[in-house]
Amino acid sequence: MHGIGPPLATPFTREGDLDTDRLRRLVEWVESRGVDFLVPCGSNGETELMTADERARVIEVVAEEASVPVLAGTGSPGLRETLAATDRAASAGADGALVVTPFYYGHDDETLEAYYRDVADASDLPVYLYSVPVYTDVALDPVVVGRLAEHPNVAGMKDTTSDLATFQRKRVLTEDADFDLFVGTAGVLAHALDAGADGGVLALANVAPSACAEMLARHRAGDHDAARRLNRRLLDLNRTITAEYGVPGLKAAMRFLDAPVGYSRRPHHEVGDDAREAVEAQVSAVADLLD
Amino acid sequence: MHGIGPPLATPFTREGDLDTDRLRRLVEWVESRGVDFLVPCGSNGETELMTADERARVIEVVAEEASVPVLAGTGSPGLRETLAATDRAASAGADGALVVTPFYYGHDDETLEAYYRDVADASDLPVYLYSVPVYTDVALDPVVVGRLAEHPNVAGMKDTTSDLATFQRKRVLTEDADFDLFVGTAGVLAHALDAGADGGVLALANVAPSACAEMLARHRAGDHDAARRLNRRLLDLNRTITAEYGVPGLKAAMRFLDAPVGYSRRPHHEVGDDAREAVEAQVSAVADLLD
Amino acid sequence: MHGIGPPLATPFTREGDLDTDRLRRLVEWVESRGVDFLVPCGSNGETELMTADERARVIEVVAEEASVPVLAGTGSPGLRETLAATDRAASAGADGALVVTPFYYGHDDETLEAYYRDVADASDLPVYLYSVPVYTDVALDPVVVGRLAEHPNVAGMKDTTSDLATFQRKRVLTEDADFDLFVGTAGVLAHALDAGADGGVLALANVAPSACAEMLARHRAGDHDAARRLNRRLLDLNRTITAEYGVPGLKAAMRFLDAPVGYSRRPHHEVGDDAREAVEAQVSAVADLLD
Amino acid sequence: MHGIGPPLATPFTREGDLDTDRLRRLVEWVESRGVDFLVPCGSNGETELMTADERARVIEVVAEEASVPVLAGTGSPGLRETLAATDRAASAGADGALVVTPFYYGHDDETLEAYYRDVADASDLPVYLYSVPVYTDVALDPVVVGRLAEHPNVAGMKDTTSDLATFQRKRVLTEDADFDLFVGTAGVLAHALDAGADGGVLALANVAPSACAEMLARHRAGDHDAARRLNRRLLDLNRTITAEYGVPGLKAAMRFLDAPVGYSRRPHHEVGDDAREAVEAQVSAVADLLD
Repeated sequence: MHGIGPPLATPFTREGDLDTDRLRRLVEWVESRGVDFLVPCGSNGETELMTADERARVIEVVAEEASVPVLAGTGSPGLRETLAATDRAASAGADGALVVTPFYYGHDDETLEAYYRDVADASDLPVYLYSVPVYTDVALDPVVVGRLAEHPNVAGMKDTTSDLATFQRKRVLTEDADFDLFVGTAGVLAHALDAGADGGVLALANVAPSACAEMLARHRAGDHDAARRLNRRLLDLNRTITAEYGVPGLKAAMRFLDAPVGYSRRPHHEVGDDAREAVEAQVSAVADLLD
Repeated sequence: MHGIGPPLATPFTREGDLDTDRLRRLVEWVESRGVDFLVPCGSNGETELMTADERARVIEVVAEEASVPVLAGTGSPGLRETLAATDRAASAGADGALVVTPFYYGHDDETLEAYYRDVADASDLPVYLYSVPVYTDVALDPVVVGRLAEHPNVAGMKDTTSDLATFQRKRVLTEDADFDLFVGTAGVLAHALDAGADGGVLALANVAPSACAEMLARHRAGDHDAARRLNRRLLDLNRTITAEYGVPGLKAAMRFLDAPVGYSRRPHHEVGDDAREAVEAQVSAVADLLD
Repeated sequence: MHGIGPPLATPFTREGDLDTDRLRRLVEWVESRGVDFLVPCGSNGETELMTADERARVIEVVAEEASVPVLAGTGSPGLRETLAATDRAASAGADGALVVTPFYYGHDDETLEAYYRDVADASDLPVYLYSVPVYTDVALDPVVVGRLAEHPNVAGMKDTTSDLATFQRKRVLTEDADFDLFVGTAGVLAHALDAGADGGVLALANVAPSACAEMLARHRAGDHDAARRLNRRLLDLNRTITAEYGVPGLKAAMRFLDAPVGYSRRPHHEVGDDAREAVEAQVSAVADLLD
Repeated sequence: MHGIGPPLATPFTREGDLDTDRLRRLVEWVESRGVDFLVPCGSNGETELMTADERARVIEVVAEEASVPVLAGTGSPGLRETLAATDRAASAGADGALVVTPFYYGHDDETLEAYYRDVADASDLPVYLYSVPVYTDVALDPVVVGRLAEHPNVAGMKDTTSDLATFQRKRVLTEDADFDLFVGTAGVLAHALDAGADGGVLALANVAPSACAEMLARHRAGDHDAARRLNRRLLDLNRTITAEYGVPGLKAAMRFLDAPVGYSRRPHHEVGDDAREAVEAQVSAVADLLD
């Protein structure tokens, strides 16, 4: 997998029910704006707030609607649930499994590596590592990533970090492998591409898929400066929908753009008026990039 | 609920299957050593490594076997799953629901408070708050605890902390409410009782239930010094089975004592030989307290 | 050294000059309220905001005025400056040297232990370890403390922690040595005494020396419950003058009590009106304990 | 100031005395390898382990020997000492003052901003902000940086971070000011230049000044890819002499290159044999870049 993939927001109704009708339309809404693949059941999909059945259903619906590859989030703290979710994603037609580092219980590097080997050995889908310390308090060590990259069924990684030093190390240590290294935050997309990223799995690609795609296109066309100028313009919007207001902020931005994204699920709450206005102001400030 | 409750280890077979036969015998093993209540599906139960159905099954089995009250862990990151698990625990005959702070996504104090109010409003069981920052990276603020204590269906808290300053504040701020405040780590049990704790929900109560019960008995009998001397003697064993080796260390200690506890589930691995010997040495060092 | 010692606030004029006249009167003000020793140049003395000469002068003045023993803060990030400050403190008549863990540069346990051995070997004064992670980001490991306690010139420790589990471990591991273990936060004084502390070096002992002394007296008289009730009543005031408003809050509280403490030095600023009123309200709430 | 500046290591004798003879030769050694300015008394200079007089002496010697501009580290936790050190640096002929965020005591953003305004108002030298959370646990907020950049005597910043997202924000928020933004870690130099950095103040520029200069030259020549390839090759050496072994590792690397750098001062210790060999292996691996 290469290019830009949104960790797709999951539409819920105001009452918090899964809204598969909107989900279908959201696939279309995002795809029509130029993304390369879709990532249902990532962190921005409020996956941890859904049952195993709901997660499987989301992946199924996305796989049905998608005309681009599907990288399905299937990780849980426990190996068994991860394997079961991965099987269901494979049956639903996903093209890869994105497996978050097992969280809640802390694990040492050796245990994390063994876990990923177990998943990769058992999975019918190519496995992508997923390191997202902001949620899990665990950052995969570059050396562990390098070793795992040699496993024939480990295909890549989503690395949610703004630290370009460790990101470069992961690129260096996976260079000889067939390993798709995605950066997980739009705040450094252009720089991560400069560092050898194969693309990005980006919350921002829900709100501004075309702008993310444009950054990649500029980069690929050799106009790295233009890619970085775009990156810089999108910094504030990206912060607003991630660090500042989280998924409810992301959804407020999408609703402002008339994306069929619905609402959040508890304990998430919709953002208040001040936050909504702040989000909308950020969206408006880059309106020219959001066509 | 008052007194000592073990967050019961969940027996798995070597293959990682839930071992309800051992679980039944474990209830008997622990109860016969003098605990006041049982806490299936706490953190030490490897709950995050089980499906919702398995969790419900564990609670059901424990409720069937127990002759003491059952405080069932029912918290998940999402409100819906928490409510569903709480309903199942109520149907299974549990006496209270222990609800961990919603993890993975970060939430501010206002959201955490609203979440617990939603749970308490909807639950047929009295709700116990559960703050365990070592796993969740979230510590419930004492002021929030104080406000929640006034809710008629919030009955208490398990507070996994060694910080006696904030623990005292929680006691002060819940003093006027009917609120059972349990400390969550045996390393400070005697001191927490001195500070007004109503008891403890303690990993160590899986390994050394009678010693924990004895600490409480000494405290209640007014011999606080004796309680603290016991506390001090158990410090190293407690560290070994929690901070140092985690649940696999806890299970190694229990197997050494012939408790019917079985094995851990992946990604947990059984401890290696060195760790096992260290655990066993700690158990042996306090053998006189473990009858 | 035993009992209660305030890490004495250092009076500055409004312009930020060292105010030795007020300092002399402050020694009298505090001593007359019943403390057992004095600790000039601790963290609450804004020591890091003074030159080496000023620090030496503060210790000199306090040693001249004091009729109780003087434990002088002499630690710096570098060994040489620590040794020089310790020499000057010895010449000034101090009775012990309180040496903070070397900060700024991070050091491993081995380096920290070697550093303290170097200091203790060279010092004419008995050396007290000082662990205060809130300022230094370093917590001395209990095992290192236990080893250092065996050095003939290491006489004790100020441990600024509310964690009664590690505090107990330090007590256990120094039990066979002649080692004065002081707790460094009033929020857990009574409990630390229960755990075997020899006393406390407490910011609160600047504001409420008699109340701190009373806690100790009740404890020594065997009325541990009364000590803990006092502890509990002082929790909020203690938080206000430490965690919440820091040294400027401490000085606002002291000025409200007409203590000759003067003002803070930059970058510290005097607290604003809201903070000052909050501080004064906390002082007033325990006025009956402050005679 | 623009380009590459090493935070110059301070030579000490084996006994820990300041070695001004070696320091003079070190200035020559580094300058001859192509740096644009010199930074005596930065973190890598073991400044916190020296007296105020020694620091002033180091700056004096460097200013005497240097044929490039001198940006002198003059920050302390206290305003007075910072102002005094800045005055002495000005008298010694330094061209700018690098002022670390006041550490030890925690300060809020408002206090940090007021502190820098006070320094800039009083200083005869242009002031450079210095944010280095690895040592101080404080990261200057980009918005505060943006406001300070408008002060006529705030001339720039050394930002020791690998986070290219916040680094970009600082660039954006200081764009309209005359503000030299230096990155403080060689691990991301090429990328920071891509993001608009005016250069770097880099520990690595002590060991590999010419390689750092070459990165900058390639960047300025428009061959950003070549700059990044160099960056990538230097990642491991940079980690070894910073995160892994700190200043003693840095000095071991320099001694291996026959730089007149001498030894470290306590509590720093020389690295052991294993570490020394690891450092030397890293140096050897990029020997072709170190001419």
